[in-house]
Amino acid sequence: MITAGIDVGSVSTKVVLLMEDEIRYLVRPTGWSPREAGLSTYQELLEREGCPEEEVNCKVGTGYGRIALGFIDKAVTEIHCHARGAHHLLGRGGLVIDIGGQDSKAILMNHRGKVLDFAMNDKCAAGTGRFLQVMAAALGVDVSELGELASGRTPLDINSMCTVFAESEVISLLAKGADKRDIIAGIHRSVARRVWGMASRFGPAEQVIFTGGVAKNKDIKDQLSLEAGCTVVVPEISQVAGALGAALYARELAGHKQ
Amino acid sequence: MITAGIDVGSVSTKVVLLMEDEIRYLVRPTGWSPREAGLSTYQELLEREGCPEEEVNCKVGTGYGRIALGFIDKAVTEIHCHARGAHHLLGRGGLVIDIGGQDSKAILMNHRGKVLDFAMNDKCAAGTGRFLQVMAAALGVDVSELGELASGRTPLDINSMCTVFAESEVISLLAKGADKRDIIAGIHRSVARRVWGMASRFGPAEQVIFTGGVAKNKDIKDQLSLEAGCTVVVPEISQVAGALGAALYARELAGHKQ
Ligand code: SF4
Repeated sequence: MITAGIDVGSVSTKVVLLMEDEIRYLVRPTGWSPREAGLSTYQELLEREGCPEEEVNCKVGTGYGRIALGFIDKAVTEIHCHARGAHHLLGRGGLVIDIGGQDSKAILMNHRGKVLDFAMNDKCAAGTGRFLQVMAAALGVDVSELGELASGRTPLDINSMCTVFAESEVISLLAKGADKRDIIAGIHRSVARRVWGMASRFGPAEQVIFTGGVAKNKDIKDQLSLEAGCTVVVPEISQVAGALGAALYARELAGHKQ
Repeated sequence: MITAGIDVGSVSTKVVLLMEDEIRYLVRPTGWSPREAGLSTYQELLEREGCPEEEVNCKVGTGYGRIALGFIDKAVTEIHCHARGAHHLLGRGGLVIDIGGQDSKAILMNHRGKVLDFAMNDKCAAGTGRFLQVMAAALGVDVSELGELASGRTPLDINSMCTVFAESEVISLLAKGADKRDIIAGIHRSVARRVWGMASRFGPAEQVIFTGGVAKNKDIKDQLSLEAGCTVVVPEISQVAGALGAALYARELAGHKQ
């Protein structure tokens, strides 16, 4: 059986093809049109895998752009898809922390991957990928370099949680001659604190599963581990956890249909 | 009797000299050093008025920079000074809404100017002068032009309260060819909603007294009036309400000393 999960986020679109137990995936920028991004990323992956569209038994969409997708069989909230995907990747339950381009979520799931409770922030740029973007621009570096640059550095204090006020602090630290890498470490600690501030109500946790685009940043992972006081695990393909969860839902759905 | 009130805000420093019942004032940017800004603005005003320092009976400081001022007799919180100053300017109590460069406050005072309750936001740039600054920069206009530009226009919807996300909305409205002046009206409505969201717990009010640097923007005053559902009064020298309140406290203090 072949199923697909299409996760259209505000910044990037992730598609997973689940071919029996093989996971194939593709990530592309969402750009202006969620509908187009979902369809074209899906088609590109099918082509790359040499898989004819008609062989896909079921397609589930998720993420903020899921409503715009016309070609899917069902839409499932990202909370459920994330939990399902993270559980599959790790084989166990726990607390999932997902930091995406414009939001962050904390999801508590039981040992079977069922959602017990969750919290979400999509109103405030602080503690999301957007915060990192603003700070990277102020520092003149690329977001993808941040993790490497901060590695092993001493975080400087950034007192404001607000992206706008924190950006001014960063600019004034630079003007005072502070080391860029220590500033970045401070920025990472700010993200970790903000997100753990939201997630801690579900803690103390034995371990935290960290997903979303920002989970690629190893320094944020380490800071999150310090804040949470436990191990933070980043599944190998953490960025596509939501799309994988959608593909797993699609498999279940296709099973019922048969 | 001559007394002085020195209000060192994050963006501008306001000094009031109260010479019997005459109010003289001066406003200067705060810049990097609150201590220096407070002292130099005070000295400039004394010089302008031809008033020797030793004739000033008492000096009270307020605002975020009040702690740094070495030369004052007493520091009083901005909440109390604002209420006192606004009450003096209007001769009655009510709800004071103050929007400054980096914060906003709502203060409920009784008919004698005594503070009954208050709310304050200095954590989030939304609903403060900083929000207007960011938007003005994105639109390529000066903050001081905003009120005029938006006058009589139809506010466009800006859905995000967050400064960072709202800035993206503004940029995308511009890209879609929306009229700059309608966008600015939308920005003003967003500020009014955010601030009234904080102040409405003290409402419904018979009238609102609007102070702070942002009160100079007539369109925001009108939008605030729509949100609050009542008249919004802007005292003529609304920007110095806090400094005036400090000078009134100083007069009381000097009276006790005699
Ligand atoms: S705190 Fe800053 S980042 Fe958060 S909503 Fe307010 S303006 Fe946006």
